[in-house]
Amino acid sequence: MNQRLHNLQAWMKENGIEVSFITSSENVFYLSGFFTNPHERLLGLAMFQEEEPFLICPGMEVNDVKKSGWNHEIIGYSDIDNPWELVLTSINKRIGAVRNAAIEKEHMNVERYEELKSLFPSASFVSAEEKMRKLRMIKDAKELKVMEEACALADYAIEVGCSEIKEGRTELDVLNAVEYALKKKGVTEMSFSTMVLTGANAASPHGNPGNTKIQKGDLVLFDLGVVVERYCSDITRTVAYGDINDKQKEIYDTVLKAQLAAIEVSKPGATAAEVDLTARRIISDAGYGEYFPHRLGHGLGISVHEYPSMTETNQLVIEEGMVYTIEPGIYVPGVAGVRIEDDVFITADGAKVLTNFPKELQILK
Amino acid sequence: MNQRLHNLQAWMKENGIEVSFITSSENVFYLSGFFTNPHERLLGLAMFQEEEPFLICPGMEVNDVKKSGWNHEIIGYSDIDNPWELVLTSINKRIGAVRNAAIEKEHMNVERYEELKSLFPSASFVSAEEKMRKLRMIKDAKELKVMEEACALADYAIEVGCSEIKEGRTELDVLNAVEYALKKKGVTEMSFSTMVLTGANAASPHGNPGNTKIQKGDLVLFDLGVVVERYCSDITRTVAYGDINDKQKEIYDTVLKAQLAAIEVSKPGATAAEVDLTARRIISDAGYGEYFPHRLGHGLGISVHEYPSMTETNQLVIEEGMVYTIEPGIYVPGVAGVRIEDDVFITADGAKVLTNFPKELQILK
Repeated sequence: MNQRLHNLQAWMKENGIEVSFITSSENVFYLSGFFTNPHERLLGLAMFQEEEPFLICPGMEVNDVKKSGWNHEIIGYSDIDNPWELVLTSINKRIGAVRNAAIEKEHMNVERYEELKSLFPSASFVSAEEKMRKLRMIKDAKELKVMEEACALADYAIEVGCSEIKEGRTELDVLNAVEYALKKKGVTEMSFSTMVLTGANAASPHGNPGNTKIQKGDLVLFDLGVVVERYCSDITRTVAYGDINDKQKEIYDTVLKAQLAAIEVSKPGATAAEVDLTARRIISDAGYGEYFPHRLGHGLGISVHEYPSMTETNQLVIEEGMVYTIEPGIYVPGVAGVRIEDDVFITADGAKVLTNFPKELQILK
Repeated sequence: MNQRLHNLQAWMKENGIEVSFITSSENVFYLSGFFTNPHERLLGLAMFQEEEPFLICPGMEVNDVKKSGWNHEIIGYSDIDNPWELVLTSINKRIGAVRNAAIEKEHMNVERYEELKSLFPSASFVSAEEKMRKLRMIKDAKELKVMEEACALADYAIEVGCSEIKEGRTELDVLNAVEYALKKKGVTEMSFSTMVLTGANAASPHGNPGNTKIQKGDLVLFDLGVVVERYCSDITRTVAYGDINDKQKEIYDTVLKAQLAAIEVSKPGATAAEVDLTARRIISDAGYGEYFPHRLGHGLGISVHEYPSMTETNQLVIEEGMVYTIEPGIYVPGVAGVRIEDDVFITADGAKVLTNFPKELQILK
């Protein structure tokens, strides 16, 4: 049994949970190595304290589950089977009446919950989500390797984006060129909708790319990420097209200083709040506190937003193996919008930065 | 109050439902004209038998709700408010203790359901989803207009795709060129992952586009759709690159004959089953029954798959205003994969075909 299943099992034993029934694609993938989007069909991974786990999925996916490396029981069902009856039988074969079960209460819908409650009338249900988030927060060597690849492609995307900034080009022109170049490299999915923002658009933290032409003297903000083997990267760079004014430069330098300082304090033993506040104080001291309206960053992995949440109030202690973004920003309407974002992996010695496109202000001619 | 809200209200009165609390982005959009993806935040539209409806959303979205044309109460909340308390207060202001409420049981998660049950301990909850599906099944003139635009762009995409089929090009090359051309037309979202499949790949109903080069003598299958103002189109065309053999031609002709016949019988009063079976019999009679493994089609609108489901067992009666796909296919491994798909709108006189790229076999040189 793999380490991830062992970790879930240890939690179940501590909390007297007899069965965990995990149904979200992301968590099934995390625990089993098998990914599918089952749409309206049932996908589930059942884990026990002692007994053999099983995975239930549509029949046509059984071979893919085997190929993914899952070497426990697989239950395939056809469109005329009732998969819930198979779940009931398979659980009852292993354990008697279920009293304490864990499900994903944020993921599971009410319709399924009512089905499950009628199958297991004596069970009470707790949520497995918080535990799953904590397990996923610490990355192993295999996950790091994939995320490094995703980050290298994000760097490449910024490089392409910079080379595409030219007289007369719009935000969408540059965005399309970036995504086209990535597709040629085999990328089939971005972590989220790619952002290329300029001028007034970049000075809003919630702008959307459009037909605005990039003008000399503008800052251009890229925020994008690439998915590699289900893992996300996430990078932001802000570059100048032609010469920019002193105020814009001051804002850029402040964000960069804050970003570097937050990387510096990112190490085991620090808290998320300390890391956020390190950057936030630098920005406040420079007089831009009110223009940094969001948290410093977020964990990254199978989801583009996961634990840890890098806020000024989160007392969570940073540990080896965490991967998170560090992305301070200053957005002054009418003046400039600047954000600089890296993905970092925490080692015993501190943060290893996974995104490596240069951060000194790039002035494109 | 708009007609859609009236329709929901009529259903509530018939069924003694005092409040409907609608939380899915698609259904809130359908009823209010306002679309947002609230991520983990609460979005809800509350509808009553007599009292004024209200919409609750994150505070920063209140202005967008107003702009969307919603002219009933809007409740914006900040990140420090408890939106559920606002829901409770706003419902209690209108009606007393809630006994019968409707929610979307497939959409709502267990966490929220438990919250709602604790706020309304005397309420029983039924599902509003089936009713919402039936309401959305009949399109009005405004919806038709938007879907016609989405279909015209789908036609254009096929035209681009055909012009990009050349010696040495791969499936992904052609796919990228199609999506790039659409982006230049302002398209920001596809209905689903675009399919460009050739050779053996096209002969599987579940192929994925890859680096397979398109060869002379191959059929190339395009399946794609464009989203315009939240409404989806969906088209499939299969074209020949160079001369194809007689067996491939026979398969193409059979699919086309089946597709045209299903369009012909699509009119008010027919059942979904009759429409499906009209195509299915033609394919079976030609000896290819076992190679047509899926339903004839599906409803289309805000979702790419909605009601009606065009299966051989669905006795639902076709009505004016329905929009659905007609997409028979034959997939013979090692020989050919052919599917032809149109979107049709049902009028009193029969089916109006919304997708218009030619269906006579296109032989590209």
